[in-house]
Amino acid sequence: MKGIIMIIDGMGDRPIKELGYKTPLEVALTPNMDKMAENGICGIMDPIRPGIRAGSDTSHISILGYNPYEVYTGRGPFEAAGVGVDVLPGDIAFRCNFSTVDDKGIITDRRAGRIRVGTQEIAQTVNGMELEEDVQVIFKESTGHRAVLVLRGKGLSDQVSDADPKHEGKNPKKVVALDDTEEAKKTADILNKVVEKSYELLKDHPINIKRIESGENAANIIIPRGAGAVPKVEPFGEKYGLNPVCIAETGLIKGIASIAGMQLIDIPGATGGIDTNLENIKNGIIETASKDYDFMLINVDGADEAGHDGEMEEKVKFLEKVDVVIGELMKIEEVYFILTADHSTPISIMDHTGDPVPIVITGPEVRVDDVTKFNERSTSKGGLCRIRGNNIMDILMDLMNRSTKFGA
Amino acid sequence: MKGIIMIIDGMGDRPIKELGYKTPLEVALTPNMDKMAENGICGIMDPIRPGIRAGSDTSHISILGYNPYEVYTGRGPFEAAGVGVDVLPGDIAFRCNFSTVDDKGIITDRRAGRIRVGTQEIAQTVNGMELEEDVQVIFKESTGHRAVLVLRGKGLSDQVSDADPKHEGKNPKKVVALDDTEEAKKTADILNKVVEKSYELLKDHPINIKRIESGENAANIIIPRGAGAVPKVEPFGEKYGLNPVCIAETGLIKGIASIAGMQLIDIPGATGGIDTNLENIKNGIIETASKDYDFMLINVDGADEAGHDGEMEEKVKFLEKVDVVIGELMKIEEVYFILTADHSTPISIMDHTGDPVPIVITGPEVRVDDVTKFNERSTSKGGLCRIRGNNIMDILMDLMNRSTKFGA
Repeated sequence: MKGIIMIIDGMGDRPIKELGYKTPLEVALTPNMDKMAENGICGIMDPIRPGIRAGSDTSHISILGYNPYEVYTGRGPFEAAGVGVDVLPGDIAFRCNFSTVDDKGIITDRRAGRIRVGTQEIAQTVNGMELEEDVQVIFKESTGHRAVLVLRGKGLSDQVSDADPKHEGKNPKKVVALDDTEEAKKTADILNKVVEKSYELLKDHPINIKRIESGENAANIIIPRGAGAVPKVEPFGEKYGLNPVCIAETGLIKGIASIAGMQLIDIPGATGGIDTNLENIKNGIIETASKDYDFMLINVDGADEAGHDGEMEEKVKFLEKVDVVIGELMKIEEVYFILTADHSTPISIMDHTGDPVPIVITGPEVRVDDVTKFNERSTSKGGLCRIRGNNIMDILMDLMNRSTKFGA
Repeated sequence: MKGIIMIIDGMGDRPIKELGYKTPLEVALTPNMDKMAENGICGIMDPIRPGIRAGSDTSHISILGYNPYEVYTGRGPFEAAGVGVDVLPGDIAFRCNFSTVDDKGIITDRRAGRIRVGTQEIAQTVNGMELEEDVQVIFKESTGHRAVLVLRGKGLSDQVSDADPKHEGKNPKKVVALDDTEEAKKTADILNKVVEKSYELLKDHPINIKRIESGENAANIIIPRGAGAVPKVEPFGEKYGLNPVCIAETGLIKGIASIAGMQLIDIPGATGGIDTNLENIKNGIIETASKDYDFMLINVDGADEAGHDGEMEEKVKFLEKVDVVIGELMKIEEVYFILTADHSTPISIMDHTGDPVPIVITGPEVRVDDVTKFNERSTSKGGLCRIRGNNIMDILMDLMNRSTKFGA
């Protein structure tokens, strides 16, 4: 028996006046999700606890059975893992921008002309830079003007401020220690040197010379922010005795799966947006389900993007497209299949809220209830009542007969 | 106002194909339980938390308002208390088998021919055995080939391995310390001596000589397993300011009640099986309810036995028989009566699962909901929604107007 958890990122919403006080999921035509509700046990789910506005990261951490209040140190470590840096517990990870500074050191473009091409070469120049300190500098490009920085070595701390001044027309901020420890002071010093040295390494980089020649802003400095220490996480496979795999679109979710030790399946054309290639995602899931994995985490991100952009109609349309995929996934056999979201991203708020999300579990022995529609309100009458993200793995393991009895 | 919690052990189940995807409780004719649902407030209950597979012991501990993760050290202490050993906090308790060894010390029968008669005399011979160490050896027979051993003294530990090799044809396993402490080493030494000395005391015991003469296997050694330190538990009566009493069938539940300082009422003919004398149990409850107790814990075990045995029809029949008892118990006046289970024991799994169980509370001031059937699915629509085992005593104490206000 396999277990699948499919997360439709940001699926939950609030009643919208323009939709007759219905939610996008309530107005979307989703016959397959409704069929799952009819065949399964439904409920509503608080990713962390009622009313808490979860991030996609903290929600996934909770759903996978970890305590986000213990594990989560910031987005940096997961972004770094998500772009393929093989992070280790204790590494200090940062999200970075490629930016443009003028010869006085003033940031003239925080996003280096939204550079898209050549970042790999630039990153390779920064990666492995030599410092006096005994610390390894790992640097890798992400998408567009984004990149990740990882410092590896003894005596480092994530209690350091950002170099990012958040506005153009300013110098990079001098990084300072946020506590009184030697580790934080050392890390702040190193980070200041990394920023300074990145300019030395990049100002005359061939890619930048070409950019300047064609009137584009040079990516001539890297600006780190959001320090986070890579957490020590019990590998998911060992924690549950499962052989886990993850299909996700965004670096953040891939990074969580990666730090949890899951195998990652790359899907060509998965953009994380509403334009993503759902056909490839569907085929990737079906192919992966036929292999030797007994747990699959799936994340599809488009509904969250539409929510953040306040695009009501796009959110409805995307949910309908995802429904078609789910129709195909329902053919997977010998599985307990859990469909839910990681949080609500209401059109009206254009950000995550703490509203609970619908959840349904299908599989051979669930106590099927009488819910026949899959949405925020109908599932609240289901047999699961109201559960939390960190109940999900316990419930799934129990249904799969893989859990250990506590007591006699 | 009295409070009664009645636990139908293992009552919960999963939908079964042969029953038209209904559960045993859903198909059983239980007009009295349904009447309770109609007159009460219903819900579903997770003994520990959603998805966690509770033992009967850990579930009862939780329902009584203790934290099983703090209190539960294994089954030994509760079994010992359940057979009437007056255990003290710090005692190390073991479950034991009477076994048969040959003259080379090889175990030829782990259950000593499933001995039923004479165990009391044999146990008395082992009980109080003298050792060099300053430790008291308490030994008492349980049912059949089962017995309990309690070591009492200073500097003991429950971090010791089992003597039980789990298979015939082997010597008793040498007990070893499971951690590096002097206490564990000392306890392991003592336990090895107890095993050895039990053979010296029992090999020529009159009961065994008779058994050998009649071709039966001798109960000539005791084999301990499952070390557990008796926990320090705040007496239930003091914790809640109640005068508590327990009517239970099995040693395990009696032991929990005993360690919690409850009065135990012995019911003649209560076997813990589907053949138990429900008439005597009913009479015992009604008689006890007329006395000066204001809290009663009741456990009836047959449905759990039927579940473990995979006996679907027996489970249905037993629930119908229990329903008749409940019809009589509903006549008890001035009471908040809580009917629930300690866990599900699905026919298909033949062991406990983490599925939630139905619960109903009747009494003068409950917010009666519109649930009219008492089963796993109908109660999930009730006014209690989904609660946990360790909420029950708080809810009961509040209904009984016996709890203290937190705050002003």
